Amino acid sequence: MTVYKIYFEPVGRRGQCQSNESLLTCARRLGADIISLCAGKGVCQACKVQILSGVISEPTLSELEVFSSEELEDGWRLACQAYPISNGKVSVPAESMTTPQRTQVEGLELTVHPEPPVRAYYLSKLEAPSLSNLQADAECLLEGLNRQHQLHCSQVDIDVLRILSPQLRSWNWQCQATVRNDEVVALGPWPSQQLGIAVDLGTTKIAGYLVDLSNGRTLAAKGMMNPQISYGEDIVSRITCAINSPNDGFHLQKLAVEALNRLAVELCAEVGANTEEIVEAVVVGNTAMHHLFLGLPVKQLAFSPFMPAVSRDLDIKARDLGLNMAPGAYVHVLPNIAGFVGADHVAMLLSTGVGKAEGIQVAIDIGTNTEVSLVNNGKITTVSCASGPAFEGYHIKDGMRAAKGAIERLRIAKDDIQYQAIDKAPPVGICGSGTIDAMAQLYLAGVLDGGGRMQGNHPHLRTRQKRREFVFISEEKRNGQPAIVITQQDVRELQLAKAAIRTGIQIAMETNGCSEAEIERVIIAGAFGSYINVASAVNIGMLPSLPLGCFQQVGNAAGMGAKMALISLSKRAEAQAIASRVHYIELACVPYFSQTFIQASYIGLYRMEHGKRQEI
Amino acid sequence: MTVYKIYFEPVGRRGQCQSNESLLTCARRLGADIISLCAGKGVCQACKVQILSGVISEPTLSELEVFSSEELEDGWRLACQAYPISNGKVSVPAESMTTPQRTQVEGLELTVHPEPPVRAYYLSKLEAPSLSNLQADAECLLEGLNRQHQLHCSQVDIDVLRILSPQLRSWNWQCQATVRNDEVVALGPWPSQQLGIAVDLGTTKIAGYLVDLSNGRTLAAKGMMNPQISYGEDIVSRITCAINSPNDGFHLQKLAVEALNRLAVELCAEVGANTEEIVEAVVVGNTAMHHLFLGLPVKQLAFSPFMPAVSRDLDIKARDLGLNMAPGAYVHVLPNIAGFVGADHVAMLLSTGVGKAEGIQVAIDIGTNTEVSLVNNGKITTVSCASGPAFEGYHIKDGMRAAKGAIERLRIAKDDIQYQAIDKAPPVGICGSGTIDAMAQLYLAGVLDGGGRMQGNHPHLRTRQKRREFVFISEEKRNGQPAIVITQQDVRELQLAKAAIRTGIQIAMETNGCSEAEIERVIIAGAFGSYINVASAVNIGMLPSLPLGCFQQVGNAAGMGAKMALISLSKRAEAQAIASRVHYIELACVPYFSQTFIQASYIGLYRMEHGKRQEI
Repeated sequence: MTVYKIYFEPVGRRGQCQSNESLLTCARRLGADIISLCAGKGVCQACKVQILSGVISEPTLSELEVFSSEELEDGWRLACQAYPISNGKVSVPAESMTTPQRTQVEGLELTVHPEPPVRAYYLSKLEAPSLSNLQADAECLLEGLNRQHQLHCSQVDIDVLRILSPQLRSWNWQCQATVRNDEVVALGPWPSQQLGIAVDLGTTKIAGYLVDLSNGRTLAAKGMMNPQISYGEDIVSRITCAINSPNDGFHLQKLAVEALNRLAVELCAEVGANTEEIVEAVVVGNTAMHHLFLGLPVKQLAFSPFMPAVSRDLDIKARDLGLNMAPGAYVHVLPNIAGFVGADHVAMLLSTGVGKAEGIQVAIDIGTNTEVSLVNNGKITTVSCASGPAFEGYHIKDGMRAAKGAIERLRIAKDDIQYQAIDKAPPVGICGSGTIDAMAQLYLAGVLDGGGRMQGNHPHLRTRQKRREFVFISEEKRNGQPAIVITQQDVRELQLAKAAIRTGIQIAMETNGCSEAEIERVIIAGAFGSYINVASAVNIGMLPSLPLGCFQQVGNAAGMGAKMALISLSKRAEAQAIASRVHYIELACVPYFSQTFIQASYIGLYRMEHGKRQEI
Repeated sequence: MTVYKIYFEPVGRRGQCQSNESLLTCARRLGADIISLCAGKGVCQACKVQILSGVISEPTLSELEVFSSEELEDGWRLACQAYPISNGKVSVPAESMTTPQRTQVEGLELTVHPEPPVRAYYLSKLEAPSLSNLQADAECLLEGLNRQHQLHCSQVDIDVLRILSPQLRSWNWQCQATVRNDEVVALGPWPSQQLGIAVDLGTTKIAGYLVDLSNGRTLAAKGMMNPQISYGEDIVSRITCAINSPNDGFHLQKLAVEALNRLAVELCAEVGANTEEIVEAVVVGNTAMHHLFLGLPVKQLAFSPFMPAVSRDLDIKARDLGLNMAPGAYVHVLPNIAGFVGADHVAMLLSTGVGKAEGIQVAIDIGTNTEVSLVNNGKITTVSCASGPAFEGYHIKDGMRAAKGAIERLRIAKDDIQYQAIDKAPPVGICGSGTIDAMAQLYLAGVLDGGGRMQGNHPHLRTRQKRREFVFISEEKRNGQPAIVITQQDVRELQLAKAAIRTGIQIAMETNGCSEAEIERVIIAGAFGSYINVASAVNIGMLPSLPLGCFQQVGNAAGMGAKMALISLSKRAEAQAIASRVHYIELACVPYFSQTFIQASYIGLYRMEHGKRQEI
């Protein structure tokens, strides 16, 4: 085995690469975050890199398909297909990198009465041991706690025991003890803060909230990218990695834990605190993220019937996960519902209050996987639909994620195109909310028919390489750069994505004997859901045709749910009760699923019933 | 800083030694177990080594005192005083090594009704998940357990969760679950053994018992040396190390844990089992060993009022200590009483039943530190006396530990000396039980007077370098090797040791208003105590003058107590109750301590009262 030195710029990572290791694998190992959607199979074409120096293996068929001969000559390659034959230097272009992106940490704010699982107690002057008071240090602490505060503590966490004796002496037998149930989980000088951290561990993004447990106030909020993204953008790629190599599974867990540790440090830094002051954490995520984070096996998640290893809520010592917090602190993990409906959905049902709402309500989490819950007078029916990554910009010619320069809103006004790009930067592509607008506008302008076919002779419509495309930003307007377009193929991809969501809503309703007209409120949660133009989503038939006032975009409701569970034991009980009450329907088992899906791919305003579409 | 390569033979350890690191420190670090009693201060002279090659720092004053110029020329040095100036080779002679020794694992056997803290349950065919049974794996397990066995389990240990899904599938949804309280701590195919391990973690020796928890039977027993001995033979040296360097404290913990892991592997190997089948452990030890093993701070143990960090019993996850057992297994640690009265003493009180005996009984654990408990109709009074290492052979000219060739029994018959050496090997020294016999025999032969002075003109009594000594094995009988003797100085050392023990017994009685004549039974526990000739110990006034039938030597009663606590929850509760009931007396606080001690140093048969001695 020969070993070469590879340098990745502009990230500035360098290290060794074996001759049987692809540049993608090497980059991942070195922490240079190259996007890969297909887990290195040469299919997704996301991992484009440019070889600046050095000799690389011959291009594969996949690469010959992707790159022109000029591009290949310029050194363009797919990192997953390229193997080094000498030392070399590789440039990772911005679009192939997991770049910092907009991450949503704010959401619908609710007031919850603090009822934290951990409480701090001040211990005034304990009786220091002497030859006439021969009580061991831990006994002195517990006896003081129970006597001064009428508690029934009987345990001290082993890591607290390990610091107890010198600390009590250095604080002159006066301290603050943090108690969880009957256990002392932390010790500090008096007065110390009681901090908690709530985390929404998303596939792409991680949102963290630092909370003062004594009053429930959010002290700081922060978002960051999920570093597991170097193992694939989508969760299925990561699960595949973990199944194929226990070592990758272990590394995926480590990445998540390190990210949470980093997030905790950054959140604490904002308020001048120390992570040792964090005495409790709540983490929510989809079921796969939940499993990868806890180090649980994922193989059974990947195959029918897609079983979680565990669904109930869990209390786990932070140290058993590798999280740096107060010595005896716990992490509370909210319950899952099913293999594709996770604790993040439960947290959303909790924070939006939809779980206990009156009447008929629908709550939707839009993502690569979209979860839909229909609440019908207390009865909760949940489905999960594979909406795919089209709204994240994948498989869309000029698609991109919601990063700088992405068109997030657009409108066709006569022959003119009005648009809004993120950070008001010159446009470089279209992100999810932009593609929904585009589709709706094309339909309203008559460029798309209900079936999704591009038609007519709109001046922006053209044919390139025998394929139709609609030009939103022309080459001229981009000073000679390629135009930004939506192609016929893009429309087909978007139709599949939106049909999946509509089908989920439809089946949840029909198995409950409800009709669309009865829906009183539709809650749209999640970062993506809060950016979309609901009118556009209704116009393309992604969401049911209801008055716009019925829709409510609530932002990161999962993060809010995590925060509520962090500060309130009642909310934890409520979350567990919600999860237990859910009736989960596996779409694959619904007989009229295919028929509904085909109908739901239509564009326009319509009602559906038993797989039949009725135009409005 | 220069770094040299040092090779220690015959153990075969090699590694780097910095120029500012003594050979003792280096040897310790490399795992070559050199004895050190004084923690490297050059005082105990135990760490003699011979330099075979290489240049070493100039001899220190300590070394010039110990070695003749010939010896120094032959390369003899104290490892704690010698620093390398070049690469070199060092020979560690047998007497400077922690050699394998007799370790006692057997003891008084008691029948205890098994009432284990963990129980195994067979789960017949669980319902495998399917599209019509969407229950997560852990829920399926818990529900099966609770339904099939009428339990109320609600938790699965995180490390069990991590193996649950693939294991249930590989066992075809049929398994054995091990439950502790409401938690599943282990999982196995059916049927699996339920093994437990009980450990007496002594300062010098470690005794381990592998037990079948289902019936309480001991499957295997094994003893080994405590590898911490490389940090000093006595506990004070080790505490000093841990106080002076957190790193040493950490390493001391690691050594104990590694030893227990090794012991578990060896015990399991004897019965063809795997350490993963060990679902519960109980560990007892003196308070310092308890703290070093658990990684608790020891500084407060070393200074008056000698406080333990914790005294109550503890349940700690094995993984939090680094022990390799079943994934979710716990280690139960029995309670301590005080800084110098540990869980091993509690275990002894438990196993001998003395804790709940009628009448007046005395229980003694003889060691470097000797614990004495007086039980007076249920009331327990405990003292701890610093009997010192004389009975371990230290500070005695020809003293040695109970290893091969040690004289363990002797008798002066007219002018002849009859003796028994361990393993019937040619005698090389006298161990503790031998020195007690020697003292008694010298007193009975009139060579010693009651005050301990060597007198008369016994043919074996001689003067060397102005000092009197009694020859037990002459130079001739040893073919020119130095004679084996007891010197006047040895007698003084032994008097201090035995006086400490008698004082402890006396003060325990007097604070209870008891007199010696009322004692119904004296239990002598521990390895050393079970080897001594009780008649000799009575004759020198170390033990009270009572009929020999009152004494009972019970062997490793601490190990037995650990075993009882391992298999029975009631016994754990009893141990905690015993510890809570003990009235501990700090000898330093007793006004007539010094007076009693002086009187108790007399040799012969006598009664004592209020520090007054009355010959019988």
